[in-house]
Amino acid sequence: MSGIDFTVFKGSPSGIVETKSYRALPTGTQVLVKVTHSGICWTDEVFKHADMVLGHEGVGVVQQLGEAVQGFKVGDVVGWGYVHKTCGTCTCCLAGHDNYCAVRTIYGYANKDQGSFGTHAIWDASWLFKIPKEIAPEHAAPLMCAGATVFAIIDSYNIRPTDRVGVVGIGGLGHLAIQFLAKIGGRVVVFSNTEAKREEAMKLGAAEFYPTTGVQKLDIGVTLDHLIITANLVPDQWMLYMSVMSNMGSVYPLTVSSEPLKIPAMPLNARGIKFQGSVGASRGVQKKMLQFAAAHNIKPTIEQFPMTKAGVEEGMAKLREGRMRYRAVLVA
Amino acid sequence: MSGIDFTVFKGSPSGIVETKSYRALPTGTQVLVKVTHSGICWTDEVFKHADMVLGHEGVGVVQQLGEAVQGFKVGDVVGWGYVHKTCGTCTCCLAGHDNYCAVRTIYGYANKDQGSFGTHAIWDASWLFKIPKEIAPEHAAPLMCAGATVFAIIDSYNIRPTDRVGVVGIGGLGHLAIQFLAKIGGRVVVFSNTEAKREEAMKLGAAEFYPTTGVQKLDIGVTLDHLIITANLVPDQWMLYMSVMSNMGSVYPLTVSSEPLKIPAMPLNARGIKFQGSVGASRGVQKKMLQFAAAHNIKPTIEQFPMTKAGVEEGMAKLREGRMRYRAVLVA
Repeated sequence: MSGIDFTVFKGSPSGIVETKSYRALPTGTQVLVKVTHSGICWTDEVFKHADMVLGHEGVGVVQQLGEAVQGFKVGDVVGWGYVHKTCGTCTCCLAGHDNYCAVRTIYGYANKDQGSFGTHAIWDASWLFKIPKEIAPEHAAPLMCAGATVFAIIDSYNIRPTDRVGVVGIGGLGHLAIQFLAKIGGRVVVFSNTEAKREEAMKLGAAEFYPTTGVQKLDIGVTLDHLIITANLVPDQWMLYMSVMSNMGSVYPLTVSSEPLKIPAMPLNARGIKFQGSVGASRGVQKKMLQFAAAHNIKPTIEQFPMTKAGVEEGMAKLREGRMRYRAVLVA
Repeated sequence: MSGIDFTVFKGSPSGIVETKSYRALPTGTQVLVKVTHSGICWTDEVFKHADMVLGHEGVGVVQQLGEAVQGFKVGDVVGWGYVHKTCGTCTCCLAGHDNYCAVRTIYGYANKDQGSFGTHAIWDASWLFKIPKEIAPEHAAPLMCAGATVFAIIDSYNIRPTDRVGVVGIGGLGHLAIQFLAKIGGRVVVFSNTEAKREEAMKLGAAEFYPTTGVQKLDIGVTLDHLIITANLVPDQWMLYMSVMSNMGSVYPLTVSSEPLKIPAMPLNARGIKFQGSVGASRGVQKKMLQFAAAHNIKPTIEQFPMTKAGVEEGMAKLREGRMRYRAVLVA
């Protein structure tokens, strides 16, 4: 069989990253991308036991086009996130919320041989995005999932410049959320375990900073209209954060956990608070996110690792150990 | 001191309902109402250990007006719910969401001597509602809290005739939710422990009925856009109900419980599901609810008890034991 030689890095039952090589070519509406960069996301840690190629914050250069592809040419710098294909016909798709397509093909479910940890990837053209020239590819990679995830909350759930918005945790998602929120003009209130990241939070655009370890009562003056949670909370902390929410406020628990969230029922109802689940971004929002990041010079703080088995392992270990500042990017 | 003789029924530390008598008169913008009917709500069960008059689903006849009251006259039939006074100046009030007023005076917090279990009550005129003549006062009483609570979800969170809406539990709230939803034209899907209430649910307006006891997997064909939960769920059931939600669907857990809700984090985010807290109704929605109930002949199924200590105790016991069909009304 003819085709391009792929080498990809996959999960395995043991959790050890495995290397796989094969040949493939794009057909129909597919695009073959030579991967240049990939972010490492906490989700990769979750999926490393699965029989699938890791990575869903990809950036690369278009190398070859299926015969039905429109809108891309060889040499385009493109990125992709965790959704790979949608139906275009369900009510979510038709309403523009195609990241919630009922039959979407998403990371880890249907593309066992594709990801962004590897030399190449083949994706349907419909979920590839051109990277604005103002954004360096190593900075674009983490925007494709981490950036899209936090920007989608702002855009899809109508966080406004007049709002006071909390961000819990300064990591891959949190440090981008602070920047996006500051640039839309909201007042950004950051919560972190210790004082260690105060200066960094303020540089990123925070207006206020509160350490939370051992804190029994949060005194933040005015309550929050929105709260984006990018960390795993212990049960007691749910009540702590409920206490700083405005009535009718909205909480976005971007928690990747097999444990259920333990939401206090009484304040939820008595105060009309909303817990809104959210993942990724629709194509429309993804495009707006890239334009907004380009216009406002929003970029992740990254640490770079080589796109090799050793680089993947080193980056994932550093993330797992909580030492990443703030997003790993694998570089081909 | 002059005044009207009140007799009211209060909670006590032991949970035994106590009788208290005193004299009072309305002043300023207050209205003295002679209570004719009161619903019994599960919240009374929660508050029976508190030093407060029970009851917040009141209906009665205006007997005397403070000197500054406008818009009411002696003899008007009026009702009231769990909110008693709001500030009118906070952002929630100014946005028309006055049931979430930051400094509202609500049931159980500031009116230790007022409620609806008793002969009389004095309330600020701002949170009294005229009962439409089409609604009998014994039917109006449960509408003031139970009816308002479910109607507010429909109205405030935009449940539409094109939506498929689930209702979990057929009790005081559930049996009214089914009626309101059917009358707005939604397709109502009812979940109940056993088959016992199937016929009743269909009569109330349900299109589909599913028993849930012992069920490991709910097969309801098409997923739900909204789900109003009027029962306490066991932890396993949260995942069961998540499985029947549409992506981007909304869940309203009207659960009165000191236990936290245990919400599965992964489907919440991956499917963009919302958990929306809600309580009572704003004044605007309360008025719309009464008009809608009058226009569509929506009324609770009630069991009547005398407005006496014995009647209060009997009604509360029957509710506590799960035998009420479906709302108790105390009658003076």
